Amino acid sequence: MPIDPRTSITTPVTQLLGIDYPILLAPMDLVADGRLVVAVDAAGGFGILGGGYGEENWLVRELDVLDRSKARFGVGFITWSLAKQPRLLDLALERRPVAVMLSFGSPVPFIDRIKRTAAIVICQVQSAALAKEAAAAGADILVAQGTEAGGHGAARGLVTLVPEIVDALGGRKPVVAAGGIADGRGLAAALMLGAAGVLMGTRFYASQEAAGPQGAKERICEATGDDTLRSIVFDIFRRNVWPAPFTGRCLRNAHADRWFGLEIELMRHLDEESAKYAAARHAGDFDIAAVIAGEAVGLIHDIPSAHDVIERVVREASALLTRWSS
Amino acid sequence: MPIDPRTSITTPVTQLLGIDYPILLAPMDLVADGRLVVAVDAAGGFGILGGGYGEENWLVRELDVLDRSKARFGVGFITWSLAKQPRLLDLALERRPVAVMLSFGSPVPFIDRIKRTAAIVICQVQSAALAKEAAAAGADILVAQGTEAGGHGAARGLVTLVPEIVDALGGRKPVVAAGGIADGRGLAAALMLGAAGVLMGTRFYASQEAAGPQGAKERICEATGDDTLRSIVFDIFRRNVWPAPFTGRCLRNAHADRWFGLEIELMRHLDEESAKYAAARHAGDFDIAAVIAGEAVGLIHDIPSAHDVIERVVREASALLTRWSS
Repeated sequence: MPIDPRTSITTPVTQLLGIDYPILLAPMDLVADGRLVVAVDAAGGFGILGGGYGEENWLVRELDVLDRSKARFGVGFITWSLAKQPRLLDLALERRPVAVMLSFGSPVPFIDRIKRTAAIVICQVQSAALAKEAAAAGADILVAQGTEAGGHGAARGLVTLVPEIVDALGGRKPVVAAGGIADGRGLAAALMLGAAGVLMGTRFYASQEAAGPQGAKERICEATGDDTLRSIVFDIFRRNVWPAPFTGRCLRNAHADRWFGLEIELMRHLDEESAKYAAARHAGDFDIAAVIAGEAVGLIHDIPSAHDVIERVVREASALLTRWSS
Repeated sequence: MPIDPRTSITTPVTQLLGIDYPILLAPMDLVADGRLVVAVDAAGGFGILGGGYGEENWLVRELDVLDRSKARFGVGFITWSLAKQPRLLDLALERRPVAVMLSFGSPVPFIDRIKRTAAIVICQVQSAALAKEAAAAGADILVAQGTEAGGHGAARGLVTLVPEIVDALGGRKPVVAAGGIADGRGLAAALMLGAAGVLMGTRFYASQEAAGPQGAKERICEATGDDTLRSIVFDIFRRNVWPAPFTGRCLRNAHADRWFGLEIELMRHLDEESAKYAAARHAGDFDIAAVIAGEAVGLIHDIPSAHDVIERVVREASALLTRWSS
């Protein structure tokens, strides 16, 4: 049931996924849990479970939540992490997700298995070259992720990446814009760039249902867009450095500022620093631990329900999209 | 005279600058010369002369071109470079520009002098913090420059920077979006984000009237958006490293790829490498010399007249802006 029958934004993505609004929940590792996915589905968007690095117990538990809810849902995986535990894909596919989203690295080893079920394949890419590779491999929907995004990503800005990928695909596959989008302005802009929808992470992190610490949500509300940093510092702290070109965007804090630019020196103190980081993460001390968030933090000032997030985005975008017609 | 009376896009920026379309020419150093400024003016946009680092002979000659043309025009300066030669501002103001554009660094030392004439002050900023500073200093128009831009800039992506600055200014000053915009999709998206216009550099570089080498224009047409690099490598080659957070985006080439990440080693070979670079620049050898261009290269495939650039952008944006009204 649409939030408001007057605010209809139909695109190839709403049609393909069977949803009311072209708004997708980013599969944020552990933060996008079953509860948040269900809430996004109930509000007319498309929730994607944050399978992330692949914690099997967590995945099974959250898939159980989704089973009980009868929600439409997707499951997201970090491709190179899934390669180490390929059976997690089978666990997910058994639950009949509407879509599986693969991010980072080649989707080729997994696409055939997904396509043998009815699931739609969503591939998140960070460059024109990766988009062409994923499209050729059989992706049904491409998510173009700009550098503005929180968490892992690469260097291309969203405003050029989306139209360039749209052109490269010649309209054959729908493109969803991700990174830096948190309101109706972002959705309307994405549609103008040729996207058929948006995928939002940070905006949904600062929602009531997201499975993140309250302290992290509050820091997202307080930060400006100048307060994030794309780097490998936090990955070093977590002993989890990704292969180039991927880096992670987090909120800056005193600890990151201290080590940014001194990454090689940091490696020399890794045992001590990673222990300190793990303790801070456990304690919710975000002067040391990272709040994984994108540049959209500067557009986020409260912690509403996922329903209210979607309602606001849809209403604002609808008003903007019809504003220039007069 | 508008290109097409049906395609009217009126904003506070068109009203303030007295132009038909909210499209500004970026004051690309030496490339945005008098001829290109006149062509942009004739097509209904707003041309801004690329005062850049401040070569006085060049500036006087191009101002003479503008005098003879009777075009409306602006003059752009790199603020910290202008601080070393403040009399260049007087030379420009004597020619009664409609606007003066100041980019990078504090505009405070210059704003009063500009405001004593009738000229409008345009300040280009790269963060929410710089936007607030420039607005408080009296800027009339803010240009929000995203990391996608060619040449010098910083790290913020356009899609978050524009709405965040719009919000920070509370609608009191118009905001123009710069960086990564090359077509009507970009203009329409910028308007959705809350901008009142766009400023384009790379798109106008690859125009017939731009004062850049034909070989550079052809490389822009051939490149994808993945082929640019924001770094200090080219600045080291040119012995012209800017203060943080400013870096320069250029087309990647074999020479930049060789040295990227090895900047400290490069400093040890500076005499040899900068001589080689200067020779390559003189010879138009863009396997070594930089083509200064932004991520929008992936959206640029030809070298039309400035008039045709503006006509295409306006027509495409107009069609998109009215598309969702039905």
